Parts: sequence; structure tokens; C-alpha cells
Amino acid sequence: MARTQGSHSDITGPKVREAALRLFAQQGYAAVSMRKIAAEVGVQAGALYNYTPDKQSLLFDLLRGHMDELLAVRAAQPVINDPVAALEEFTRFHIRFHAKRPDAVFISYMELRNLEPENFINIEGLRRDYEAQLEAILQRGMAEGLFQIPDPRIATMAIIAMLTGVNTWYSAEGRLKLSEIEEIYCDMVRMAVEMK
Amino acid sequence: MARTQGSHSDITGPKVREAALRLFAQQGYAAVSMRKIAAEVGVQAGALYNYTPDKQSLLFDLLRGHMDELLAVRAAQPVINDPVAALEEFTRFHIRFHAKRPDAVFISYMELRNLEPENFINIEGLRRDYEAQLEAILQRGMAEGLFQIPDPRIATMAIIAMLTGVNTWYSAEGRLKLSEIEEIYCDMVRMAVEMK
Repeated sequence: MARTQGSHSDITGPKVREAALRLFAQQGYAAVSMRKIAAEVGVQAGALYNYTPDKQSLLFDLLRGHMDELLAVRAAQPVINDPVAALEEFTRFHIRFHAKRPDAVFISYMELRNLEPENFINIEGLRRDYEAQLEAILQRGMAEGLFQIPDPRIATMAIIAMLTGVNTWYSAEGRLKLSEIEEIYCDMVRMAVEMK
Repeated sequence: MARTQGSHSDITGPKVREAALRLFAQQGYAAVSMRKIAAEVGVQAGALYNYTPDKQSLLFDLLRGHMDELLAVRAAQPVINDPVAALEEFTRFHIRFHAKRPDAVFISYMELRNLEPENFINIEGLRRDYEAQLEAILQRGMAEGLFQIPDPRIATMAIIAMLTGVNTWYSAEGRLKLSEIEEIYCDMVRMAVEMK
């Protein structure tokens, strides 16, 4: 399948990242060599070093790229002041964004262990930025007397785990469409936090 | 560290499983050879085959052992008829059982992809058995007019993802003790399902 040939770097860069993402998700970071990635892309192993200094940089680029995209797409959403509507929007956004990127989500959780310390801190910081957006919605809802939440930090982690969990069982051929799943999660998340 | 020497099989069996669990969790199944496991245990690579026919069997044994233990420990819990109390007990049980076994939980999610089809079906069946226990509690609560749940199957998956998610951030040195975390999750889970 994989042909060994020269390629233009503007094409090969994305191809290298795609191949690395696919292979890391299938086999795990430790099992995938630079040689395997090169073969998958169809370049000589040596040529890969034109695009990335090493395998760790590739892993970091993938995890960093995933978080950068998540934060950029979110930043482009309209601001919603009503906490109930904002929570619903966050729920739908999270499910939709993550369901579209199963490999990136999978390695973002599974391969954290293989990040070098400074890279880990970097990714952790971006995750905290994202989590802080949900926590701010929950805090606002509490301040306005709309939400009743025992611990907003823990509720943030619980809601994100619940939503990301969709990726472990969702199938496009399943009983429910993604839009229906979003609907059900919106109800559950709202019920979990709203003032009785 | 690892010594290469003969061992009695009643000691070496558990040691092989412990070593495989640790190595699979650290490096991923695909990156760990039978030779690496043997070196970790301190036996010759050939001797490993006295304890397990191959690496796939080892992975399956670990995932199966984890599920068997989960179901056995649960089966030994007293039956609780009140759905609200049963849901609280399930929440506490799930968090406590999983927090104690981070490596087993980690590979149970991450290495599903590396199970051969018949092994995958087997583990999936055991997971369904476990999930069915929570779903039965939710159904009972609905039947008794105590719970209000848009889709009990999805709610089951959402609650389990939320609870297992504790493993991704819990630390014994963290802000909250596990018993406090259990308390907060009990509140959130109850709030998410109870009739308003």
C-alpha cells in the first residue's frame, strides 16, 4: 500500500500527522516507530525528520493540535449569558466536537502517560482552560440561584467525563442519532445541576 | 532488577499477571513482548509459556479477571430494594472498586482494541451484565415514580462514565478524600435522576 517516494512538505506534513494519529490510536505510542510512520506515509524514514524532530514531538503536536482546535472552535461560538442555555450549548458542543474525532480523543487520554513532563504540563494547562469554561458556567448558574452544585470543580470533571464517555459506545449505526443523544445528555446534565 | 531464575508456578502465575498488567498499562499491549514480561518477572522467556499460551491469553485473562472480580464482589453485596439507596450504594461501590485498580481500569478501556473478536465479545458481555445492574436500579426507580430518566440505557452509560472518570484525576494526595468524592458523586447522580 505505502509507496516510498518524495513528497512536497505542504502535503506531507498533514499526512505525517494523520498517519501518526492513526497508528498511535491503533497500536499505542510505544509500539509505533518513526520507521512505521514513514512507511504508512510512503516516505523514507530519514525524510520524516524534515517534518518532525522526533516521535515525542509528533505526539505532542497531535495532542496540542487537538486542544488548540477545541479552544479555537469554542472561542468562535457566540457568548451565551443565560447559564441554563450556556450549559446546554456546552453539552451539545462537547459531544459533537469529540464524536467527530475519536482517534484524537482516544490518544488524548491514553497517551498522556507518554508525554515528557513539560509537554504534559502544557497539555494539562490547555485542558484546564477548557474545563474552566464549563466551571464558569456552573459558577454563574450558582450565583444566579439557578444551579445547586455540591462542588463545581468536581461537577465540571464529572460532566466532562460523562460527555466524553459517549465516544466509548457511540456508533453512527446505533439506536440513536447523535442529535438525539445530545438531547438526552442536555436533559441529564441540566437535571444534575438545576436548583430544585 | 529482574532476576532470571526458576520459580514455583503457584507464585509465578500471579507474578506474571502482575508484571503483564504493569507493563501493558505503562507501555501498551503492542509494545510489550513476552520476552519483556519474562524479564520483568525474572524467568526465562521460554518458561513464561508454562503459565500462559500467548500474550493475547494474558491480556484476556487480565480483562476477564477484572470483570469477574467486579461481578463477584458486587454479587456479595447485600441486596437493597429502595432504588434511591441502591443507586447511592452502586455509586459508592463503583468509585471505590475502580479507584483501587487504576491499571486494570486503564487497560480495560485502552486495550479493548487489542482483544481478538471472541475475547472482545466475552468481555463486552460481562460489561453488559454489570451495566444491567445499574440499569435495573434506574428502571425500578422509574417504575416506583422516584426517578425521571429520559433514556435509562443512556443514563446507565452516562453515570458509569462519570464515575469511572474519577480515575483520570483522583489522587490520594488531592484536595478531597475518596469518601468525600463519593459523597459529592452520590448527590450529583441522585440529582440527575430524581423526580422533580
